[in-house]
Amino acid sequence: MTKQELIDNIKSKKSFLCVGLDTDISKIPEHLLDDEDPIFSFNKAIIEATSDLCVAYKPNIAFYESYGVKGWESLRKTCEVLPKDCFSIADAKRGDIGNTSKMYAQAFFNPASSGLNFDSITIAPYMGEDSVTPFLEFEGKWAIVLALTSNHGSLDFQNFQNKEGKQLFEEVIDKVNTWGSSENIMYVVGATRGEAFTTIRKHAPDHFLLVPGVGAQGGSLADVCQYGMNKDCGILVNSTRGIIYASKGKDFAEKAREEAVKLQKEMQEQLEIHGVI
Amino acid sequence: MTKQELIDNIKSKKSFLCVGLDTDISKIPEHLLDDEDPIFSFNKAIIEATSDLCVAYKPNIAFYESYGVKGWESLRKTCEVLPKDCFSIADAKRGDIGNTSKMYAQAFFNPASSGLNFDSITIAPYMGEDSVTPFLEFEGKWAIVLALTSNHGSLDFQNFQNKEGKQLFEEVIDKVNTWGSSENIMYVVGATRGEAFTTIRKHAPDHFLLVPGVGAQGGSLADVCQYGMNKDCGILVNSTRGIIYASKGKDFAEKAREEAVKLQKEMQEQLEIHGVI
Repeated sequence: MTKQELIDNIKSKKSFLCVGLDTDISKIPEHLLDDEDPIFSFNKAIIEATSDLCVAYKPNIAFYESYGVKGWESLRKTCEVLPKDCFSIADAKRGDIGNTSKMYAQAFFNPASSGLNFDSITIAPYMGEDSVTPFLEFEGKWAIVLALTSNHGSLDFQNFQNKEGKQLFEEVIDKVNTWGSSENIMYVVGATRGEAFTTIRKHAPDHFLLVPGVGAQGGSLADVCQYGMNKDCGILVNSTRGIIYASKGKDFAEKAREEAVKLQKEMQEQLEIHGVI
Repeated sequence: MTKQELIDNIKSKKSFLCVGLDTDISKIPEHLLDDEDPIFSFNKAIIEATSDLCVAYKPNIAFYESYGVKGWESLRKTCEVLPKDCFSIADAKRGDIGNTSKMYAQAFFNPASSGLNFDSITIAPYMGEDSVTPFLEFEGKWAIVLALTSNHGSLDFQNFQNKEGKQLFEEVIDKVNTWGSSENIMYVVGATRGEAFTTIRKHAPDHFLLVPGVGAQGGSLADVCQYGMNKDCGILVNSTRGIIYASKGKDFAEKAREEAVKLQKEMQEQLEIHGVI
């Protein structure tokens, strides 16, 4: 998917919602457990109930991988039913030396090799340039590089500062910017520190930011938009637990839709406030 | 596997060789391509030909993942035939927020969940403490954290320095040291800069180091041993291409063994020089 197509989808759907598919068999409704592939059944129902309200889906690869071969089969089937007008994100946090990152790119971007055809993948930048660039060689595909995350350990290294006071996550953005463009690179920026978006936007004014941490992790949507939104919207805000686990009953898809509707409405308001639509 | 068991294996085998299983279908002998699972056939033959000469095997997960479900099945079968007296390393470079790293730990350490039962996994530290600690909750399992790698992009961020001149990889070692011990944490340190081991050993005198980059990537075994070896040996040196792709003919396993024998002899000499055996 191109940047312009993503922007067009955001404007027409009046939403910048990304739905996280961190599908955990211990948290899905009991009545699905007799299905041949409960994880896929769950995902398919969630996707059907929410696809007009969101612009992206983000399966968290660890949740599939934890079930080995079977989990990878659930992932493959899920990838197949993701709607074409939604940007698909393999939340995999991969990254290795050049020849190995190339293999990871085959895994997530080349359906002839792996059965998977994601639009993008999340990348850990620790190993530098050759760990990122193999993902940029695929036309229309994206690398979403970790910059400033929202988890407990995020500041262990991400705010390590050089003598000029520049933090590691700023150095990451500045260097990664030189390997691609805002047409094939995004950054992960956690929602829990709204004001940090001001710093991020100094380094990456035009890039899309993938923003986890609104809702369950405590980030505020209004803050994220105030400090992070740009003229193209420029943010994809992820919500997982609040949507997919809204109910553990037979009404789980309906309740997921209700939660997605609420978020879509809040997002529409923000898009209007900030003049994107 | 415990640290003492690993040390005992090194002393009895007179080797600290780790064989990398970066099995690429385009590089394996043609006569295997008609097998039901050529990657597994190749790995099984390599393992049988080398298991008395090495103390560890390291499948590079990207190479399996690039074939999707089928690749994960080859990985599962390979994991099953790894000998019990060899330390097994899932070279996966994983790492995510706590609840997700927990799932990756299930994927590689819990056979009841995933079919895989590795002794250890390589971890990218960018996301900090909660991305590493879930792997340490498994008795007898190890996290092998990236410190200073040997690839082209390794110095893009790993030598980012604070105002006291401390480099990021040093900060990583110092912090990660506080989350576990030399009984469940190792570090990845590339072989291409022998003298860097002096710095590494200041921060981690007792930890095992996993050392890629000898051979194909240009590192010298003697240098690595001079600067990196400790009284318990303390290093696992990986070789991949030089061994597993020593021949593309029907004699591939035999030639792999010949190369492994050469390395084992060099390693025995180093163990003797440095008084480990």
